[in-house]
Amino acid sequence: MRAVTLPSYGGPEVLTLADVPDPEVAAGEVLVDVTATAVNRADTLQRMGFYNPPPGASPYPGLECSGRISALGADVAGWQVGEEVCALLSGGGYAEKVAVPAGQLLPVPAGVSLVEAAGLPEVVCTVWSNVFQLAALAPGEVLLVHGGTSGIGTMAVQLAARHGARVMCTVGSAAKAARAEALGAERAIRYRDEDFVEVVRSLTDGRGADVILDNMGAKYLGRNVEALAVNGRLVVIGMQGGTRGELDLAALLSKRAAVHATSLRARPAAEKAAIVEAVLAAVWPAIEAGEVHPVIDRVLRLDEVADAHRLLEESTHVGKILLTT
Amino acid sequence: MRAVTLPSYGGPEVLTLADVPDPEVAAGEVLVDVTATAVNRADTLQRMGFYNPPPGASPYPGLECSGRISALGADVAGWQVGEEVCALLSGGGYAEKVAVPAGQLLPVPAGVSLVEAAGLPEVVCTVWSNVFQLAALAPGEVLLVHGGTSGIGTMAVQLAARHGARVMCTVGSAAKAARAEALGAERAIRYRDEDFVEVVRSLTDGRGADVILDNMGAKYLGRNVEALAVNGRLVVIGMQGGTRGELDLAALLSKRAAVHATSLRARPAAEKAAIVEAVLAAVWPAIEAGEVHPVIDRVLRLDEVADAHRLLEESTHVGKILLTT
Repeated sequence: MRAVTLPSYGGPEVLTLADVPDPEVAAGEVLVDVTATAVNRADTLQRMGFYNPPPGASPYPGLECSGRISALGADVAGWQVGEEVCALLSGGGYAEKVAVPAGQLLPVPAGVSLVEAAGLPEVVCTVWSNVFQLAALAPGEVLLVHGGTSGIGTMAVQLAARHGARVMCTVGSAAKAARAEALGAERAIRYRDEDFVEVVRSLTDGRGADVILDNMGAKYLGRNVEALAVNGRLVVIGMQGGTRGELDLAALLSKRAAVHATSLRARPAAEKAAIVEAVLAAVWPAIEAGEVHPVIDRVLRLDEVADAHRLLEESTHVGKILLTT
Repeated sequence: MRAVTLPSYGGPEVLTLADVPDPEVAAGEVLVDVTATAVNRADTLQRMGFYNPPPGASPYPGLECSGRISALGADVAGWQVGEEVCALLSGGGYAEKVAVPAGQLLPVPAGVSLVEAAGLPEVVCTVWSNVFQLAALAPGEVLLVHGGTSGIGTMAVQLAARHGARVMCTVGSAAKAARAEALGAERAIRYRDEDFVEVVRSLTDGRGADVILDNMGAKYLGRNVEALAVNGRLVVIGMQGGTRGELDLAALLSKRAAVHATSLRARPAAEKAAIVEAVLAAVWPAIEAGEVHPVIDRVLRLDEVADAHRLLEESTHVGKILLTT
């Protein structure tokens, strides 16, 4: 099969489409003929050599895909060859075929095309596991999402607004602000021109955000703690602004607040399967009812993967960038 | 009545026993004639001017007491004048009388003297709310307690060991190590001579501690994160080693771990009442069965309060230092 390989680490130009052996299908796994995959920030880190695949994962990038089941490993029940699916991956989505633990498969929701479905698993599982399971966002609470028009951001805004939370987010431009507000954000804060701590405080009578979903890491750590409400939960899922920051424990203690940091990729298959099961029960019906939809910026071909990475790193997109095989 | 007042901030010598007006008893409160109170680290911070009482709290130090109910405010049910009680306070324990919300009262457990009971509420409520409610320590998990022979430490070690957890703690001397191990710690680490990260890792096959109860704050932040296991929970309840420390978010993320920081004192009365109710149900029976006991270092008189603070700050004590009126 063809897959995007990394002969060396570096810029988008190192991404190299090559002929490689087909993946082997272990017990409990299915083989998926990939129709589309999606580009995630983690893929750019992997490309630069900062995020090696966990043990046992495919060496190729790609944390989600859609496609058709072409073979079943031993001990797989409930899935058939030929079924259209999308899947949460530990890697290997940038390829024509990928082997996936059956617990990480999801049906393609009614009303969503097979290509678009490639952009759902990673964002939905990330948002659900962090905002709803870990941080337990309650209706009426205030959620602040950094990067409100990223793939993760567009899904977090929609799911939290539908849940009855008050949603605020940061964005890089007025055009992105309009998109985020159309998705359900009460207020999209243009971080280049506005101080998100001040805006969140002024919109909440000084109370702050109950939950913050953060992709900036160290750069925002101090201001995120400032922006938290009493009993607030900061959930760091990305470190685009660095990894080591000063934590003011006195401020955290005075708010009885918490800093969580998580990622999906390295979790054991059983934990991923539990998240996928919860997402199927809680989010798929909302997608099928049209209340929540995947936001797709554009669809490129797998051989345009370098351009896709350049687009992601320019950050002018809104929602997901997909790649079709 | 007499109470310990703070005419100025500073060393133990500023603590001044003085005649002051009796407290007023609001609706929902009872008046307690104080038999004994206990010295907590927070009292030394208040004495130095670093920890002002929350709005509405007594200006005098003292976060717990025992005594007899001498009057009931309006709307108090379930308690009688003359009953022996102990109580979690927002302040005011260093006095002959204190007004307490009824939800913060506990009966004196059978087998515990009225004086000794003064040393129970703060430590039991702190350990229960942090280790068991917030961090949800599970049987078989590993708890690391810093300051294993402090009042909090002696209770955390006992309750966690009884719960079926593996308990490790840090202590300042071999004599304290022996006391902590007698209370149920699998291993007391002499922090002056040993690296707690290394010891915890070596005792857990490199896995680390599932829960860490920390009183050192900034000084231990980096090493605490190093010592955490995957899915670990660091709970900071004191900052004897400073308030601002560097947090390695990449390390936290790779472990999918969390840093919590909390205190009891500033919580709303309803939250305190819920903790007290849980403690009555979960911990009081264990105390009455003799499975868990208050560890009392010594009992001084209220007019020896300056000596009590000096003793606490020398840190040669094991367990609680009490003051009788």
